[in-house]
Amino acid sequence: MDQFIEKTIQTEEIYNGKVVKLRVDEVTLPNGQTSKRELLTHQGAAAIIPVTQDHKIIFVRQYRKAVEKMLIEIPAGLIDEGEKPEETAVRELEEETGYTTDNLIFVTSFYPTPGYTDELIYIYFTKELEMLSEAKQNDEDELVELVELSLSEAKQYMKEQQIHDAKTNYAILYLESLGMK
Amino acid sequence: MDQFIEKTIQTEEIYNGKVVKLRVDEVTLPNGQTSKRELLTHQGAAAIIPVTQDHKIIFVRQYRKAVEKMLIEIPAGLIDEGEKPEETAVRELEEETGYTTDNLIFVTSFYPTPGYTDELIYIYFTKELEMLSEAKQNDEDELVELVELSLSEAKQYMKEQQIHDAKTNYAILYLESLGMK
Repeated sequence: MDQFIEKTIQTEEIYNGKVVKLRVDEVTLPNGQTSKRELLTHQGAAAIIPVTQDHKIIFVRQYRKAVEKMLIEIPAGLIDEGEKPEETAVRELEEETGYTTDNLIFVTSFYPTPGYTDELIYIYFTKELEMLSEAKQNDEDELVELVELSLSEAKQYMKEQQIHDAKTNYAILYLESLGMK
Repeated sequence: MDQFIEKTIQTEEIYNGKVVKLRVDEVTLPNGQTSKRELLTHQGAAAIIPVTQDHKIIFVRQYRKAVEKMLIEIPAGLIDEGEKPEETAVRELEEETGYTTDNLIFVTSFYPTPGYTDELIYIYFTKELEMLSEAKQNDEDELVELVELSLSEAKQYMKEQQIHDAKTNYAILYLESLGMK
């Protein structure tokens, strides 16, 4: 891959935030020219596809400021420092839904947008859910509500673009691939 | 949805780049508290899943500076101003692969990461490809090489994480759902 590598000549730190860090790298392209790359550093995220015994998928509905809309998504959140992605998935399940699981199946991982960020998202699946006896504390600045849907209801929401994000659209296709109706 | 809306009190512009614009909004949460939202504005992207008559998927392999790796992805690119997503999809197909099509099937669209950006990606599918007689000019600072793979080869690359991004992992699951082998 050596002939493709873009070598960093210079890095300009633009912003160091809570969720994203932005920098601009000046790079040498393989053809000798230089170019600029706007790059976001991100700690990564984990998500979980939780399915109940009566074949309902548990989603969370929340306001997404970036798109100024309510979206219905599978439970997910940022990976805390030192945390394993599977721990994040269970923690977010507990905090956002009040369910837990000790049976996590790894589905896939992907970069949502490798063009400008190293964010990597891990996706897990479980159909063995247990309700927590005590509710966990959610992030103070995150207001979510639970939505339990059958797969066909979820597909309807997808058509209406209330379900409209990479991990959740992926989850729906994944559940279909398992033969879920 | 009124009870969920996060009202912007103040916006701080951080960076206005070629690909991303970053701002930080101070918002009022529904519970009356305030919080900060790091928000990226992005012009959106379109991608295409091109399948040849002999059941090969056409991918592009390129160096992704954000993740410092070579990735194999379906052809995709930023939506230019005034361009329709389906035009972007065909343009990127032409520029990156040397094929074109007049038969585009809309697959889905999704926000890769609605937690912090309004980027929306549109995904199309075609199995009616025609080779261009003359190669189109690609972006000068984008060096890509073509990779034609069967679905099972693509799944192997996914296991090895050379295919490892949202739109391409989605494409593979989508082709499986069509019954492709």
